Amino acid sequence: MQIDTQVRGSLQQRSTDLDNRGRLLVKCADKPGIVSVLSTFLHTHHSNIIESSQYSSNPENGTFFIRIAYHCDGLREKASQMEKDFEQIATVHNMEYSFHYLHERTRSAIFVSKEPHCLMELLWEWQNGDLDTDIVVVISNHEDARPFVEALGIPYYCIPANKDIRKQVEAEQIRLMEEYNVDLLILARYMQILTPAFVDHFENRIINIHHSFLPAFIGAGPYERAYERGVKLIGATSHYVTNNLDEGPIIEQDVERVDHRDNVGELKKIGRTIERRVLAKAVKWHLENRIIVEGNKTIVFH
Amino acid sequence: MQIDTQVRGSLQQRSTDLDNRGRLLVKCADKPGIVSVLSTFLHTHHSNIIESSQYSSNPENGTFFIRIAYHCDGLREKASQMEKDFEQIATVHNMEYSFHYLHERTRSAIFVSKEPHCLMELLWEWQNGDLDTDIVVVISNHEDARPFVEALGIPYYCIPANKDIRKQVEAEQIRLMEEYNVDLLILARYMQILTPAFVDHFENRIINIHHSFLPAFIGAGPYERAYERGVKLIGATSHYVTNNLDEGPIIEQDVERVDHRDNVGELKKIGRTIERRVLAKAVKWHLENRIIVEGNKTIVFH
Amino acid sequence: MQIDTQVRGSLQQRSTDLDNRGRLLVKCADKPGIVSVLSTFLHTHHSNIIESSQYSSNPENGTFFIRIAYHCDGLREKASQMEKDFEQIATVHNMEYSFHYLHERTRSAIFVSKEPHCLMELLWEWQNGDLDTDIVVVISNHEDARPFVEALGIPYYCIPANKDIRKQVEAEQIRLMEEYNVDLLILARYMQILTPAFVDHFENRIINIHHSFLPAFIGAGPYERAYERGVKLIGATSHYVTNNLDEGPIIEQDVERVDHRDNVGELKKIGRTIERRVLAKAVKWHLENRIIVEGNKTIVFH
Amino acid sequence: MQIDTQVRGSLQQRSTDLDNRGRLLVKCADKPGIVSVLSTFLHTHHSNIIESSQYSSNPENGTFFIRIAYHCDGLREKASQMEKDFEQIATVHNMEYSFHYLHERTRSAIFVSKEPHCLMELLWEWQNGDLDTDIVVVISNHEDARPFVEALGIPYYCIPANKDIRKQVEAEQIRLMEEYNVDLLILARYMQILTPAFVDHFENRIINIHHSFLPAFIGAGPYERAYERGVKLIGATSHYVTNNLDEGPIIEQDVERVDHRDNVGELKKIGRTIERRVLAKAVKWHLENRIIVEGNKTIVFH
Repeated sequence: MQIDTQVRGSLQQRSTDLDNRGRLLVKCADKPGIVSVLSTFLHTHHSNIIESSQYSSNPENGTFFIRIAYHCDGLREKASQMEKDFEQIATVHNMEYSFHYLHERTRSAIFVSKEPHCLMELLWEWQNGDLDTDIVVVISNHEDARPFVEALGIPYYCIPANKDIRKQVEAEQIRLMEEYNVDLLILARYMQILTPAFVDHFENRIINIHHSFLPAFIGAGPYERAYERGVKLIGATSHYVTNNLDEGPIIEQDVERVDHRDNVGELKKIGRTIERRVLAKAVKWHLENRIIVEGNKTIVFH
Repeated sequence: MQIDTQVRGSLQQRSTDLDNRGRLLVKCADKPGIVSVLSTFLHTHHSNIIESSQYSSNPENGTFFIRIAYHCDGLREKASQMEKDFEQIATVHNMEYSFHYLHERTRSAIFVSKEPHCLMELLWEWQNGDLDTDIVVVISNHEDARPFVEALGIPYYCIPANKDIRKQVEAEQIRLMEEYNVDLLILARYMQILTPAFVDHFENRIINIHHSFLPAFIGAGPYERAYERGVKLIGATSHYVTNNLDEGPIIEQDVERVDHRDNVGELKKIGRTIERRVLAKAVKWHLENRIIVEGNKTIVFH
Repeated sequence: MQIDTQVRGSLQQRSTDLDNRGRLLVKCADKPGIVSVLSTFLHTHHSNIIESSQYSSNPENGTFFIRIAYHCDGLREKASQMEKDFEQIATVHNMEYSFHYLHERTRSAIFVSKEPHCLMELLWEWQNGDLDTDIVVVISNHEDARPFVEALGIPYYCIPANKDIRKQVEAEQIRLMEEYNVDLLILARYMQILTPAFVDHFENRIINIHHSFLPAFIGAGPYERAYERGVKLIGATSHYVTNNLDEGPIIEQDVERVDHRDNVGELKKIGRTIERRVLAKAVKWHLENRIIVEGNKTIVFH
Repeated sequence: MQIDTQVRGSLQQRSTDLDNRGRLLVKCADKPGIVSVLSTFLHTHHSNIIESSQYSSNPENGTFFIRIAYHCDGLREKASQMEKDFEQIATVHNMEYSFHYLHERTRSAIFVSKEPHCLMELLWEWQNGDLDTDIVVVISNHEDARPFVEALGIPYYCIPANKDIRKQVEAEQIRLMEEYNVDLLILARYMQILTPAFVDHFENRIINIHHSFLPAFIGAGPYERAYERGVKLIGATSHYVTNNLDEGPIIEQDVERVDHRDNVGELKKIGRTIERRVLAKAVKWHLENRIIVEGNKTIVFH
């Protein structure tokens, strides 16, 4: 309990410092003058651009994407008027866009099965103040992780699951997502398949970690198959979940070197360290609104 | 000769495609509205921003840096008027700035001593069309590399050097730099110390490769000293040359793993592959105007 | 408490499986026939070599080092006779050597100050069954880590320390090392200097993590100095502690890429992930008797 | 011509120094005493073990593999008697084995199509004295690389190829392999499929570089498909060629980071640097007899 209070306290304090920070993501057809329009809008609304990253899918007739982080004194009060003013610009230039505010912290749920290493990494980063989110609930189909989670004051729900009861399990999970008002679902080695209905409910808001270097070893038993194939590197991939198993937009991947001496057990052990850091990075970038999904790919502004 | 003609032909062709591309680097005090000013300037000059990267040294009262790559039809003709128009803006906002055009290729000289690996890597990348420069002359204090260089149709000058004749050697080198109208000097394992007078003559235009992970093992014999210390990684560092030996602004560094079995000879062999890629990257970024030197550090916009 | 019991149970079980495994480390002058002597010795003692790694410092008149892992049914009972029989061989060939048994688990103490990340990593690896040791005590000069440690059933002693009371602090620490019968001391970001007397007491048995890529940034404030120098990679180094600050034999090093946007705070954050994995690897290799210290360098048999 | 003479001279000299070095590779059923038998054999034949690496596929009833590098004065003269003496041991223990001598240099052929980067890397490493082989012939289905190759005094044959004339093309290639007495075939981006008859003729002696991180993107257009999938790392794989396309035993793999800005052209450019180093490593390890093929996997003794 003591730990938890301390964590929330430190996150709370950080957030206050950053209360006047916003982020604007925009997507539209590329044409001359877009950056000028956006930067002039922010300037006239007394906002200073702190960070700006852009990408155009093609020098000619491409699609334009931009992420702008800005500072604006009194942003909490001004935000709704700014958004209203922005509507006109967005209409003229046919923009898709979203505003994000650091004073509105993302509410995350973590789903986990038996293996706790990814959950632990996220909790650890969170305690350390390195994940700017409220972890509001942990859901598992096993009891194993309960003590770690409850020690941090986070509600833990064990909902046993298997394919025969998938529908009622998901109904209960959705109910909890609503109860806890969850923005982001993190599958931290949650080994149950989700139904299309569930996935559609949270489009581009479910991040999974797959324990292979996709598209190699899609599906079950990736470490076993990596061992059989005799690869010299193993990897992990975090991606948004879509209804094509392990084929959603990739956010981050990484690998480690292995050799002939590493049996499946060793591969799993090495793999755990990759999974931990790959998932943590993907979640962090999502929370920082660095990711734009375009088709089945991601643009990640570093 | 045949090889050389082919290379120049392919670079020539690429350059024509990119004739209408420019880059603008700006540095000034950070304040709201700078991006708006710059993007509006380019827009009113019918230029489309292709790439833009910025950095502020501090959210409050920091220094602002930006690199903008843009496309402008007929740029070759419009450039001088644009530059003239920009002067006013620069004066108002107290900007340091520079315009760069892809139709004006940087002219590079490579300096090398006995070990040819870095020279070879640069020549190789250049033949491959991956270094957008004219390599106009190679200067060495040894004859070793002459056949490789002349086979590519590049003039090669062997100017024996040692500390007693440094002054007259440098006079001859400077004469050649002027004769060949050189913009960039690349020290590709050139093992002679340069005098302050020479360095000052080419401020922020001399790139060196040092065969250690600076600031470890400054000076002579870095692989020998790495061996003595028993490090588990060795590295290389490319940096702009200043008058403090091996202490100029770092552009790029990289490392490779070594172990107790690697003697000094092995370290050098492994080191060569690091040196090759680190120097090639630094040169490429310089040619793409991705680097801004600020104090004794670099901002590198990737 | 429940967590702790579970960890110990799983380690206990693993150890039983491996009860018949031993490791033999030997160092002597290199000459033909050494491997033959050792392998014949083990064979005549009904031991099967599972893993064997050797190194000779020089093809001619070098020093020979070998690590042999072997299996022997009933090793627990046979070990003392084997050691007695080996004495003769060792005398004839003038060998330094040591036998290690997997049924005798290393007893470790962890020292930590305020920053808990390295401690957490070790505890996590240990809970996961990936550190084959008994963590018998944690000592700190602060109270911060107490809840994490005691939750795992590990005794925690807070001994405030500063340079004025160093002698009495170390006396108390040594008393605890003796009370808990400690084999290995792990300095997991313990920010106090140890006296020569203390270090000598535990020669080659104290592992430290230094938060830089040694020999760069020896001493205090390495991240601050890395920031000042504008390096493009930061690192961490684990080493055995000697009486020359940060100059003991290096066990492992690693680095991560940084750029101009990373301020000191960011460097520290990135650095923490490096420190965690570098220290964990060094400790693991020590526990697996993979390390031989020779002069001021290590031989690490992977 | 001058370059070539210089290279051969330096390789020749190195080889003389190492004339008394041999390597023994052994595979047999694992059982106690094997290392003892081998090391005693070498000792009684006045050979000193310089390097020894072993691997057992399983602690119980596994297969045992060992690579021993040894020094023996007068090896050139003693080799045939040693081999004869070893036959008995091999029969008793049912060993597969091979002796290799540094005074008998491997004769390599390089096959290449249009893209020269892998060929260039091999030639470069070879000139540098880092590939201990005679490159006796280069075969291509294009003329592009002829000048580079002939400049080094290496015969170059251009044999246009396509699937309709595959049989006669391969007949000509085999004739050349025999004429030049080739031990090792290196496919340095040779873009023609080889027939089973050809592959069988050179079992475990053809090394290929595939431009993806296998098993991802088997077959044609891997960079195009990597781009489509939006992966965040691209890779290359070197492997022995078997009759299952891109499914032979993997020797080495590596990757580089890419991002959303990298189009197919950029991926290819980045990929070239990976392909170069991955193929060079695989060839080097083959030449050093570090690789044992077991089933569809490799054991690589580093």
